[in-house]
Amino acid sequence: MDLAYKIINDGSVTLPAGFLASGAIAGLKVSNAPDMALIFSETPANFSGAFTTCSFAAAPVKLCQQRVIEQPTLQAVIVNSGNANACTGAGGMKNAEAMADLTAAALKIEPGAVMVSSTGRIGVQLPMDKITSGINAAVAALDETGGKCAAEAIMTTDTCPKSMAVAIEIDGQQVTIGGMAKGAGMIDPKMTVPHATMLCYITTDAAIDNKLLGKMVADATEESFNRINIDGDMSTNDSLIMMANGVSGVEITAGSDNAEVFYNALKALMQQLARAMVMDGEGVTKFVNIEISNAATEADAKLAANALANSLLCKTAWFGCDPNWGRLVAALGYSGAEFDPGAVVIHYDDQPVVMNGQDAGVPEAELAKVLQQREFSVKVNLNAGNAGYWMWSNDISYEYVKINAEYHT
Amino acid sequence: MDLAYKIINDGSVTLPAGFLASGAIAGLKVSNAPDMALIFSETPANFSGAFTTCSFAAAPVKLCQQRVIEQPTLQAVIVNSGNANACTGAGGMKNAEAMADLTAAALKIEPGAVMVSSTGRIGVQLPMDKITSGINAAVAALDETGGKCAAEAIMTTDTCPKSMAVAIEIDGQQVTIGGMAKGAGMIDPKMTVPHATMLCYITTDAAIDNKLLGKMVADATEESFNRINIDGDMSTNDSLIMMANGVSGVEITAGSDNAEVFYNALKALMQQLARAMVMDGEGVTKFVNIEISNAATEADAKLAANALANSLLCKTAWFGCDPNWGRLVAALGYSGAEFDPGAVVIHYDDQPVVMNGQDAGVPEAELAKVLQQREFSVKVNLNAGNAGYWMWSNDISYEYVKINAEYHT
Repeated sequence: MDLAYKIINDGSVTLPAGFLASGAIAGLKVSNAPDMALIFSETPANFSGAFTTCSFAAAPVKLCQQRVIEQPTLQAVIVNSGNANACTGAGGMKNAEAMADLTAAALKIEPGAVMVSSTGRIGVQLPMDKITSGINAAVAALDETGGKCAAEAIMTTDTCPKSMAVAIEIDGQQVTIGGMAKGAGMIDPKMTVPHATMLCYITTDAAIDNKLLGKMVADATEESFNRINIDGDMSTNDSLIMMANGVSGVEITAGSDNAEVFYNALKALMQQLARAMVMDGEGVTKFVNIEISNAATEADAKLAANALANSLLCKTAWFGCDPNWGRLVAALGYSGAEFDPGAVVIHYDDQPVVMNGQDAGVPEAELAKVLQQREFSVKVNLNAGNAGYWMWSNDISYEYVKINAEYHT
Repeated sequence: MDLAYKIINDGSVTLPAGFLASGAIAGLKVSNAPDMALIFSETPANFSGAFTTCSFAAAPVKLCQQRVIEQPTLQAVIVNSGNANACTGAGGMKNAEAMADLTAAALKIEPGAVMVSSTGRIGVQLPMDKITSGINAAVAALDETGGKCAAEAIMTTDTCPKSMAVAIEIDGQQVTIGGMAKGAGMIDPKMTVPHATMLCYITTDAAIDNKLLGKMVADATEESFNRINIDGDMSTNDSLIMMANGVSGVEITAGSDNAEVFYNALKALMQQLARAMVMDGEGVTKFVNIEISNAATEADAKLAANALANSLLCKTAWFGCDPNWGRLVAALGYSGAEFDPGAVVIHYDDQPVVMNGQDAGVPEAELAKVLQQREFSVKVNLNAGNAGYWMWSNDISYEYVKINAEYHT
């Protein structure tokens, strides 16, 4: 069995056959940058979604959650940036439905076959005149190479669009999965699976039923977006939507070898998008792999990983290239994970930092070299069992504070 | 019954009768600032303590935890700053014991009657030659007006010493409680009661047995230091030690009116010290009262308060004077507290911000005026029951990142 897949870095949601997309300007952003994205499948597609667990879930999230349950197939996703349509009450729900209906009418498809996302400022009603003209512009601009324009239109504080694809060969035929994501702050994996921690849209020309698609989305989310943490905050609007239109003619069935091949490719794509989100995190200068090994249980390993990934003191030390393991052990110590402090071993990449709970004796200058890299690993061996967990984290810089003190959400 | 107490802002741990204190230079700090503090009771004092729950608790913390159980009385507390004696293994334990023994020998008191604290860099053994000369200097400098010198000697990133006292009259006699505290980062109230979130030393000339003292320390900690959050991190060395030497001749007994009067004064003193710590938090420009009301349960109220106090996005918005209530509702939404989002009401001081989960319609410029103050309140009415909880929080500024990227702990 061949698990190989090919990452296509300049791919997008329109690389899989049968999908069109576009980005357009509705005029919701002061900058007048593109703020309306549309993904359209020429034929009805199976689909699945995962959404924020925040109790102030935005109106479009509530609408999508309904439609995941009620709708058999999906044909379009319309997304606006610049306004979150969150905390907008009954008027907000009406506007989210209107966004879907306007898109369906312009596309001449069934009204229920449209999902809606919004991101941006909370608590302000959508200006429906601008939304309407934006939808019409996005429908008019639909194109089979429009994936990258769509990826640009969903950006808020992101500095670059996140768009990618992955290709696999199944039974001699090519199957493609395309994806785009948005998100650079308000990112934390505290949610229960399935969930999403940002906006992410995935398309594939494989044929997969909704049940298997839902399982794959949940599992791959747990192995990608649930492992990242930028600032410990979670949004009202996090959404992940995946569509499978079957245009390739290749069917993926539960338990088959093909399902394993497909899942690995999907996971790789979602991990690449998650990595790209961390790398583009607000003010991020370091990408930090956190690896916990030999924990008593996976729950302990998760507690330990989360404590490191969430610690403001660790994140600022990484920013300062300070091989400051005191903050690491302090965070491990309050994490709630069970272990013997006197048995803990920590490495920065391959440099020992802590041996048996004490300084490993490597000169600081050597350790600082590791932290001066754009990417490095913090490896913690708890010596308490056989369980492990990994996460991707980042530093917190002046720039993070600047962006979040000045950007009014 | 008179619950009145008088806060004495220029008071210190030497204001209660029978206590001496001093600050001295051991030479542990690069700056050569005072780094050794000593508090001494001329007669054996009852005492109690509360300590970090971090599993990497420092050697002096372990020693103190033993002595709280084993020792009937205490006569001295010796504290060094500049080195935490944490993650230092058996050598560290030996050094903590040696610090106590050297102090006892110099003071000619029983070796077990000394408690020890250390704060500063983690993972480096104490230079015992410097410690020894520092202890000798501190003993030589003991003075009945030495409380403020002691408060200065325990500082690390603090910008000012935190020293205070409170006086009460009981049965026509004056009873005094003095206190000093240290701590400006690594502060979070995630611990179980009893615990301390920083270094704090309290003296009183009242006569109180160890059991009642322990109960009062635990309760007052819950009402003061457990309510503050600066950066969500917790230290390996947090310690609170209170001594009661009975020199005033006033006895405080459990369940008496006097106990209530005394407890209220103690709580007021600890709250003043906790406030001073938040105000002096690393890079702090805003003091934020978080008040949760009408929660379904106190646990829900605590979850909601903690989510706001811990949110990096809220803290940076406060720094930016951004009346950004979207981040408030996002944090409440992921807090885990149970409530109806459509019933939530939020005020900044007396300005309504959110009514029934939606924008209250007050112009941003009006709201921004509230946030431009050095101190303001975020009042959240969850409309879900009768429980409440309050916390004191702060903003996160460029300066916080600068201090923590550059200060090597």
